[in-house]
This record gives sequence, structure tokens and C-alpha cells, in this order.
Amino acid sequence: MRNYKLAIVGATGLVGRTALKVLEEKNIPNIEYTLFCSSKSAGTKLEFMGKEYITKELVESSFDDGFDFAIFSAGAETSKHFAPIAASKGCIVIDNSSAFRMDDDVPLIVPEVNFQDIINHKNIIANPNCSTIQAVVVLKPLDDNFKIKRIVYSTYQAVSGAGKLGLQDLENGPKAKNFSHPIYDNCLPKIDVFLINRYTKEEMKMVNETRKILGHPNLPITSTCVRVPVSNCHGESINVEFEKSFTINEVTNILKKSQGIIVQDDIQNDIYPIASNSTGHDEVFVGRIRKDYSIKNGLNLWVVADNLRKGAATNAIQIIEKLIEENMI
Amino acid sequence: MRNYKLAIVGATGLVGRTALKVLEEKNIPNIEYTLFCSSKSAGTKLEFMGKEYITKELVESSFDDGFDFAIFSAGAETSKHFAPIAASKGCIVIDNSSAFRMDDDVPLIVPEVNFQDIINHKNIIANPNCSTIQAVVVLKPLDDNFKIKRIVYSTYQAVSGAGKLGLQDLENGPKAKNFSHPIYDNCLPKIDVFLINRYTKEEMKMVNETRKILGHPNLPITSTCVRVPVSNCHGESINVEFEKSFTINEVTNILKKSQGIIVQDDIQNDIYPIASNSTGHDEVFVGRIRKDYSIKNGLNLWVVADNLRKGAATNAIQIIEKLIEENMI
Repeated sequence: MRNYKLAIVGATGLVGRTALKVLEEKNIPNIEYTLFCSSKSAGTKLEFMGKEYITKELVESSFDDGFDFAIFSAGAETSKHFAPIAASKGCIVIDNSSAFRMDDDVPLIVPEVNFQDIINHKNIIANPNCSTIQAVVVLKPLDDNFKIKRIVYSTYQAVSGAGKLGLQDLENGPKAKNFSHPIYDNCLPKIDVFLINRYTKEEMKMVNETRKILGHPNLPITSTCVRVPVSNCHGESINVEFEKSFTINEVTNILKKSQGIIVQDDIQNDIYPIASNSTGHDEVFVGRIRKDYSIKNGLNLWVVADNLRKGAATNAIQIIEKLIEENMI
Repeated sequence: MRNYKLAIVGATGLVGRTALKVLEEKNIPNIEYTLFCSSKSAGTKLEFMGKEYITKELVESSFDDGFDFAIFSAGAETSKHFAPIAASKGCIVIDNSSAFRMDDDVPLIVPEVNFQDIINHKNIIANPNCSTIQAVVVLKPLDDNFKIKRIVYSTYQAVSGAGKLGLQDLENGPKAKNFSHPIYDNCLPKIDVFLINRYTKEEMKMVNETRKILGHPNLPITSTCVRVPVSNCHGESINVEFEKSFTINEVTNILKKSQGIIVQDDIQNDIYPIASNSTGHDEVFVGRIRKDYSIKNGLNLWVVADNLRKGAATNAIQIIEKLIEENMI
């Protein structure tokens, strides 16, 4: 069995640290790790895999060392500059930023959903936006069975999605202002920047990435993205209309049999997905499964997942695992 | 000018205390107040209108004193028992509970929206559910202009909607359990009890009360109601489809001209409705006004209001003011 060299870029950030945790848990054999970060954080000592790692500053020559894989979680600007350098040196980059997601020659991958799209990648593979990942994991098997006609998303997104500063703002209370307004005791209907069409970039990520991943470039989708004062795990109210009719039993059984999903929908016993039960898990949790009686073939779902794990680190690592498994490296 | 006698039933609860605050601010002339509460809280001293009031226990003979009005905010059971007694003695009851809202001979009133429905009331007038009130204030003028075809609600509801125990749970952190799960650091997709159709009672209140207030008994509406860790002011992501076409400018101008609404939609300057700016106000705040491009004549809105004020106390008091103003007593 061959050995692999994996670079973690942005190892000291929230997603980077979550990646280290997930890698420790998975303990994929025969991997040698190198931890990169910004010049500011270089030299940070991190306990990982039972030993001490010292983070290195990411520089252009970093990828001369012959890496097989890199997980980039250091923001779009770092990805734009360094991912093409890594790729040109034969390293397969799994990029957590939005830099390349909508590029035609960059596959946007959720392993349970569209791993087949990875063929012909050009060494850059994009990890979707956190809120999109958890939605498509649930929607894909339903689309396969009932054909989605339209989606209306309303999200309840945790502050960890905005990194350490997001968590700090929630902890610091009403005076903190890393967000445009205090997140403490508020829901903020703005995630990422506003675009000319009056949507936020986050809202359009959900629209465009869902279309790309499900392979329906013109699927009617709308989205309202809201930050909520919760530390970790995004919630989503998903309203979906299908071409074909269904029963709630059929939907529930399909979801139960699908990969990466845990159905929590025992309303008699107050069991439905909530953040505090989802945090630390790699699955997507779905509940409140019920007909939308306002339209033919309408369905409402409540979906929760750990945005740092399945929404970011876990998904990236699953892509690497699957590339190894399928002998695609 | 004649004098009026007004009973506040449930004066020591969150909505009751908010009613006292709103009444002090409005200082409606020629009103004499009596404050009622449960036997448990009877004798509580409350500073109100510059003097000390002592709350009285509500008993069946309480309404023998010839009240003109009563505001009931003591839960559905108290309303079911005492409101008919008050009404039979000539007192006009404005009932904040869900006890009578869907009764055919009980008008369900939001003054800006359907005050005309109040004629022929039989001394019980229902105050709608908090989350419904703020939605219909915004939807009514749009329905008048563009005719609503379908509504998809997703709510972000504050803990004050669950009374003092709700606020306590949020303050007490992860161990508190007045809700079915800790609200601290969680969004809970359950408000009120579950019904046989898998919706919560809160979700069906939004569906049924919106239909009744807008006067469209079969309007297609679906709803997902979620409690969020915010102390006061409900948020709502409202997706609405109209019969007629519209421009965003038209929608914005109509909302700006409508009663009881403040448009906050200057995204360049990060101005949109948030709880901390809406608390203590009687208006309904609306922003994030944008086309839903996934459907013909689709619109997305973000609506925030103080659920204790416009969602409960203020709306009830506005009904009384208007009855006096229109010489309907």
C-alpha cells in the first residue's frame, strides 16, 4: 500500500482544527501530514495524532515537496493564489473556499451525492458551501425518486460558520461587532456580502451550488440566509415541490436508507434535529418531515448538520478517502 | 366624554405587564383600570400610571362591576372559562389566547388589516397569534395590490413568546428545560404542541389565522415555526407568490405608505430588521425585500416585530382605542 502526503492549509483556523479532529478519528492509514498556516500563526504547536506538530508558513515553494493532497481552509484569497500552484505541482487540492466552486472545470463534490462528477478534475476539487452540503445530502435521494421542481430555503446558521471571530461575537454579548450587528440576542438576515440582485452571496451560493451539485442548471431555487445566535450547527427550513407524488412514509424510508443521513422524526417523543445533538457528528440530521398542503407534491423538512464537520472538514476528508478507495490517485 | 372601565386579566404575566407599559405610553383619557391575576399572584403591587395598583384575584363575580373592556392574557383555559362570563355581563373582551380565534362568530382583528370584521361582534374579539399579526400587517397591502396566491412561512421566534419561563430558560443556559430541549445555543423546530397532521399548533395557527384575517378561507399557506435563542421580537422569512406582477419599487412604496409598517431595507448600509432594534416598538419592521426568481411573481421578505407589543399587548389596546374612536361602544 502506498503512502500519501497531505497538506492542511489553514490548520489553525476553525475548519482546519476540525479537519485535524476528524482525521484523528478516521486515522486513515499511510498518510503523512504537514500543517500550513499564515505567517502570523506559523510556529503554532498543535497536538495531532499523538504527537506535536509545528505549523509552517504557507509559501509558494511549499508544494515543491510532492504532496498528493491538500485541504485548503484559509479563505478565498489564499486559495486563489496557492491552489493553482499546488495543482500545477501534481497535488490534488480540496478547496473549502468559494474561489473555484462555480468554475466549469472544477467539480463541486459531496461524496454521497455526486462523486461521479469528480472524473476529469484538474487537481482542484471544490468543497461546497456548508449550508448547501447539508441540503443536497437530503435532497438528492428525494430528487432521484420524485424529481424536484422548486426549492425555498430559509436557513438558521451558526456563528462558527464565520470562524473564530463569529464565536467570539456570540460570547462577547451585545457589544461585540465582528458581524455588522451584534449576533447576541439577534438573528441577522445577512451572511456574506450583498449582491446587485439584493440577495447575499451566501443566498446565491445556495441557489447556484445546489443546481450544480444536483446537475439541474436551471432548477428554480430561492433562499433566505439568516445567522442565528447558536455556536455550532446550521439549521434549515426546506420547502420543496416535486414533479411526482409521494407519501411521507416513502420519503422517510428513502431518507433512512440514504447514506450520510440520520432521520430524527419522532414528534411524539419530541425528537427532531437540534444543534446540540448534531454537533460533533458527521451525518446530516433530518426531521419535521411533513406534507406542504399548500401545493401539489409539496414537502417541508427541517435539516441540521455540524457546519464545521459535514459542512466543511468532514466532506473534504471524505473526498480524499473516496479518491484513495477508488484508486483515483 | 364618557369614562371607561378596563380590566387587565393576567396583569402580572409578560403580556400583561407589556400591556400596562403600552397603556402608560398611550395614556388614553378617561379610563379606569383594574388589574386581575391568578389567586397565586393576587395582591402583587404594580406601579402603573404613577400610582400603586394591587392585583386582584380573578373570580366569576369580577365582572359584576360593569367593565366596558377586558384584555385577557392569562392563557386559553382562563379565557375559556371567564371570557364568556365577562361578555355576558356586557364587557367587550379582547382575548389574547387561542381559545376563540377560529370561532365563526368571533372576529379576529388586526386593526390595520381587518377592523371592519369587528362589526356584529358578540363581546369577544380575538387577538391573533403573535407570529400571524406581524405577517398579515405586511401581507395585507400587498394582497390588496397584487393578490396573494401562496405563502411559505419560516419563523425565528423569540423566547418571550413562551412567557417568563421561556426567558428563564434562555438565561439559565444549557441545563434549563422549560422547553422540550434547551433553547440556549439551539433552535427548536417546535412551538406549541404537535397535531395529527405533523404540524405544530403554532404552524397551523399561522395558516388558519392568516386565512381568516385576510379573508381568503382557502389561501394556500404552509409554515415552519422555530424557536430561536433570542429574548424578544420574532423574525419571519416570508416567501410569497402573487397573481399579478410587481416591481420591488412598487412593493417598497406600498409598504412605506401602509399603516403600522417601517421599511428597513438599505442593504448598502446594513440596514434590515433585527430584534434589538425592534424591541419596544409598536410597528412591524420589514426588509430584505427582493424578487424570488424561482417563480413568476415571487417575493421574499424578512419581517421582525416585538411579539409582546404588536404581537400581543399593543394590538389588543389598538382594538380598544379604535372601538372608542369609532364610537362602537
